[in-house]
Amino acid sequence: MSSEATEETEATEATKSAPSSPDEMGVFGTFALFELGASWAELNGASRRVGAREPLEVIAAHTERVAVDGYLTVGLTERSHFLLRLHARQPEQSQAVIADLLRTRPGRHLTVRHTLTGVTRPLVYASQAPDQLQALQATEYAGGLPPRYAVVIPTRKSAAWWNLPEAKRLALMREHTAVGIEYLAKVKRRLYHATGLADADFVTWFETDDLAAFSALVARLRALREDTYNERLGAPTILGTARTLDELFTELAH
Amino acid sequence: MSSEATEETEATEATKSAPSSPDEMGVFGTFALFELGASWAELNGASRRVGAREPLEVIAAHTERVAVDGYLTVGLTERSHFLLRLHARQPEQSQAVIADLLRTRPGRHLTVRHTLTGVTRPLVYASQAPDQLQALQATEYAGGLPPRYAVVIPTRKSAAWWNLPEAKRLALMREHTAVGIEYLAKVKRRLYHATGLADADFVTWFETDDLAAFSALVARLRALREDTYNERLGAPTILGTARTLDELFTELAH
Amino acid sequence: MSSEATEETEATEATKSAPSSPDEMGVFGTFALFELGASWAELNGASRRVGAREPLEVIAAHTERVAVDGYLTVGLTERSHFLLRLHARQPEQSQAVIADLLRTRPGRHLTVRHTLTGVTRPLVYASQAPDQLQALQATEYAGGLPPRYAVVIPTRKSAAWWNLPEAKRLALMREHTAVGIEYLAKVKRRLYHATGLADADFVTWFETDDLAAFSALVARLRALREDTYNERLGAPTILGTARTLDELFTELAH
Amino acid sequence: MSSEATEETEATEATKSAPSSPDEMGVFGTFALFELGASWAELNGASRRVGAREPLEVIAAHTERVAVDGYLTVGLTERSHFLLRLHARQPEQSQAVIADLLRTRPGRHLTVRHTLTGVTRPLVYASQAPDQLQALQATEYAGGLPPRYAVVIPTRKSAAWWNLPEAKRLALMREHTAVGIEYLAKVKRRLYHATGLADADFVTWFETDDLAAFSALVARLRALREDTYNERLGAPTILGTARTLDELFTELAH
Amino acid sequence: MSSEATEETEATEATKSAPSSPDEMGVFGTFALFELGASWAELNGASRRVGAREPLEVIAAHTERVAVDGYLTVGLTERSHFLLRLHARQPEQSQAVIADLLRTRPGRHLTVRHTLTGVTRPLVYASQAPDQLQALQATEYAGGLPPRYAVVIPTRKSAAWWNLPEAKRLALMREHTAVGIEYLAKVKRRLYHATGLADADFVTWFETDDLAAFSALVARLRALREDTYNERLGAPTILGTARTLDELFTELAH
Repeated sequence: MSSEATEETEATEATKSAPSSPDEMGVFGTFALFELGASWAELNGASRRVGAREPLEVIAAHTERVAVDGYLTVGLTERSHFLLRLHARQPEQSQAVIADLLRTRPGRHLTVRHTLTGVTRPLVYASQAPDQLQALQATEYAGGLPPRYAVVIPTRKSAAWWNLPEAKRLALMREHTAVGIEYLAKVKRRLYHATGLADADFVTWFETDDLAAFSALVARLRALREDTYNERLGAPTILGTARTLDELFTELAH
Repeated sequence: MSSEATEETEATEATKSAPSSPDEMGVFGTFALFELGASWAELNGASRRVGAREPLEVIAAHTERVAVDGYLTVGLTERSHFLLRLHARQPEQSQAVIADLLRTRPGRHLTVRHTLTGVTRPLVYASQAPDQLQALQATEYAGGLPPRYAVVIPTRKSAAWWNLPEAKRLALMREHTAVGIEYLAKVKRRLYHATGLADADFVTWFETDDLAAFSALVARLRALREDTYNERLGAPTILGTARTLDELFTELAH
Repeated sequence: MSSEATEETEATEATKSAPSSPDEMGVFGTFALFELGASWAELNGASRRVGAREPLEVIAAHTERVAVDGYLTVGLTERSHFLLRLHARQPEQSQAVIADLLRTRPGRHLTVRHTLTGVTRPLVYASQAPDQLQALQATEYAGGLPPRYAVVIPTRKSAAWWNLPEAKRLALMREHTAVGIEYLAKVKRRLYHATGLADADFVTWFETDDLAAFSALVARLRALREDTYNERLGAPTILGTARTLDELFTELAH
Repeated sequence: MSSEATEETEATEATKSAPSSPDEMGVFGTFALFELGASWAELNGASRRVGAREPLEVIAAHTERVAVDGYLTVGLTERSHFLLRLHARQPEQSQAVIADLLRTRPGRHLTVRHTLTGVTRPLVYASQAPDQLQALQATEYAGGLPPRYAVVIPTRKSAAWWNLPEAKRLALMREHTAVGIEYLAKVKRRLYHATGLADADFVTWFETDDLAAFSALVARLRALREDTYNERLGAPTILGTARTLDELFTELAH
Repeated sequence: MSSEATEETEATEATKSAPSSPDEMGVFGTFALFELGASWAELNGASRRVGAREPLEVIAAHTERVAVDGYLTVGLTERSHFLLRLHARQPEQSQAVIADLLRTRPGRHLTVRHTLTGVTRPLVYASQAPDQLQALQATEYAGGLPPRYAVVIPTRKSAAWWNLPEAKRLALMREHTAVGIEYLAKVKRRLYHATGLADADFVTWFETDDLAAFSALVARLRALREDTYNERLGAPTILGTARTLDELFTELAH
């Protein structure tokens, strides 16, 4: 599922979307899945509505250093209500946002049910395949913006994968990239390297308006030899719908 | 356990059962398993009875876009009380129903303990086996309507399965379909493709009045070579009994 | 661990123990493991004693259709207090008992932590081995009645098992049955087929006064080639002690 | 990890430590790991101190039939506070102690988070290796009494292990015993057979003052061919420190 | 992931950092991951601020015997708020700190969600590779002190690993050490042996200012043959940011 090759064109964008100035160094993405405890609903509606402004304020206070995007996951991802994706130059900056968030009135009812941290890196494989690199750079996502759906899929490769000769891995990734290119107009992707930072080697972030096409893409990727080296694929698969932070916390306050 | 071939005759019906007009595009099924917290039972009976009408109202408000069926799972599926199956053109529509449901009075005591989303697709294998296709179309479910029992079985195929040559997969699915046809009069089936949307490749939905026959069917399917490619089979297996939504929420209010 | 061969002599008895009249059709067994929440203990003793009569009443109301046996599991099976074994012509009848039970005063504090449903079937293997069949029918359980201990062991067979030629499976089961016959005087057994109804293929129910002999029996069974085809064996192993329902709920009320 | 050979010299002692008179039949060990709920700490100190005497009284009431030892596990074993090891002629006797314990004031806040039951048996392997038997009987534990630390390690053998010819198993266990003998002066051991009674084949109980030596012993055992047949090894590994019951419950009352 | 070779230069330091006088015997490290319950946040701010001094006092009372370091994990490690690393001559001393901590006002709201204990040992492999030993001793960590990030990665080796001839293991570890040396200036490491004390063989502790370099290091280690013998790698991976204890408990009091 890793899609190192298809990510290069977005590497710069990833850096941009972090509030600090873009540069060659990696941008860290932290994916935090939250569950809202039943005690929140026991507050009266007015308290909930007032309290729901607090997360917006604390996130705004970090806006120079951390870019935060929100997704509603309730009903589509078990035991969860929403996902935050945080981009920062340092994970400690994203951690500070989450710590502050948990101190707000709704935050006192939140549990971080799952969290993944990874880092964007310069392209590994596609840089050795100029034809694919060109195709990646020439193809743009053609769906609505922002896309309606986001999916997070963590993967862990087997030791056998990492022990392959690099040329072999390159050949396998070339097949992977070729499939990815076919779907670029319908499915945006971004890759984060997570080895050592989480129980995963990669966190792949997908955005799309067309979940049927997305499902077909992943099924195509599963038919590649590279997939035989995936020890973990999902677990969890996190599926959510895009929201502005204002929409998100307003919705949770209802 | 995937039964792509046996599903074709129902693909149209699936589209129909979604409130929006049927067409060639896929219908998304979301299967949400709910657990009702102990705090619900601490309310007095009158509060529970009044509150139990609210889910009916919020579901009705979405009826143009989302078809919802209910099943009582308590006692037959661990740590759960009921299952909702939601059909919509877009999972965000089903998510909206669940989000609204959780805001009702009983909803404040509900946890979404498990959730799976998949999409119906035009027949993949049976369309290449005209004789089986004809048999599928000629055989009708002959049990009572609605059937008393529903079973949800998610499956994940191994990488080896997806890496088989298509002709090989076709041959293996032909064996699968042949068994399915024998049981069509006793067991209704519908297949959802879930790759990338959940930690499963398929969600198979079964309905039957005859659970002994159903169990025999699944045992027959396990004896096929195709089953050796299943990495996940159930986990959970969700077993429930059919209810109208009115019956379901009345029962939970007791 | 499946013991299809050793079950034949009890098949009729299983039907009898269900309240409906015995016949050739299968009897469904539902095994529900309950955990009693800490909130129950916060009630005063009088409330608990009065409330503990309610389960007896609701179970009695179903006595024409569902036979219920109770076992105390606390301390011997993690996170549990008791197990109910329910026999009925239809699982929906057993479900109705559990749903009613959960509406009683102690029921409001109960969680169904694990549940398994299976169905008894006419003998598969032993009917092809007349000598073993005769031995099975000639040997009676010689321990006290009711036996002091019950053990539930769910098993899932591998795909390789189900893909064996039937003659091979028959030969392997013949070895299994031979061991079972040696222990029939000390260990009662009953087999339920659970494929498709739970994440197991078989639920084996054991009753004994002699747990050391029982443990030796299972160790003997593990030394058979058939055991190499078990993917799941226990997980959980449920161990409890027999109680009348009156004793069970009185004990829980203390 | 199973250490059948090294256990013989302690088999008699195991029987002795059970309150009933020692004899040839097995002694059952039940290992119950308890977690104390946060609600206990909400009581005032005086209530806790008074309440903490109740477990001592109920355990004393069973002293003729059940021998109980206590270990503090908090901080060294996740989500737990203490472990009880109960020895009895019958597990139902140990169950009665636990059931009574849960009815005491602190007991109302306790959860049995994990439990394992096994039975001591006459030596299987060492009895066929007279030289090792002699070494086992000639070597005594030379550390302080009672040893400061206790460790419980459940193991499950693979089907391949049980399907080995007995002579092969004997040879493999001879290697195991040889390592165990080297450490007998520093590490006490006792073996319980758990097949069919828990999701394990063996529960090994270790006591030592020297955890570094103990860790080296287990690492040595892992380097034996026998270890390649272990499917489960720990999960959990339970590590605690010895306490008299008086010390244990006094400490929990603070 | 085990890095026995790279640890030698730190072995002495480990002993020093324990409050008792350094010597040849091992130092035990206990890694305890804490989750703070929602009930803590329900206290008013003043109570929280006063209460948060108590952990500092109880930890100070043990300072002669136990060295404690603190890390904020909230947001970066699921379902957790902070990690304590405790160094002592005996794990019972570290346990005493944790037990006392849980008796403080914030402690009453804490759960020990995960805990690992291991022991430092004299170098096993590098002592047989004098050239690497020299390199290890000549290279110093060149990042800021204290490093901003800490990562705990438990690993369990397969039985196949332990059954390798020692010369083979030595050769594989030599490859491992060579990679580790390259990163010594950016990533500090310390190794704890945990076999028998936890469900792991090693606990590796990493500290760094440069998480991208750290992730690259672990990816390099995964490409070694030694990694093919890792059965467990992480699960959990614990990621946190360094805090003085004063900072840590002040932050949790907010």
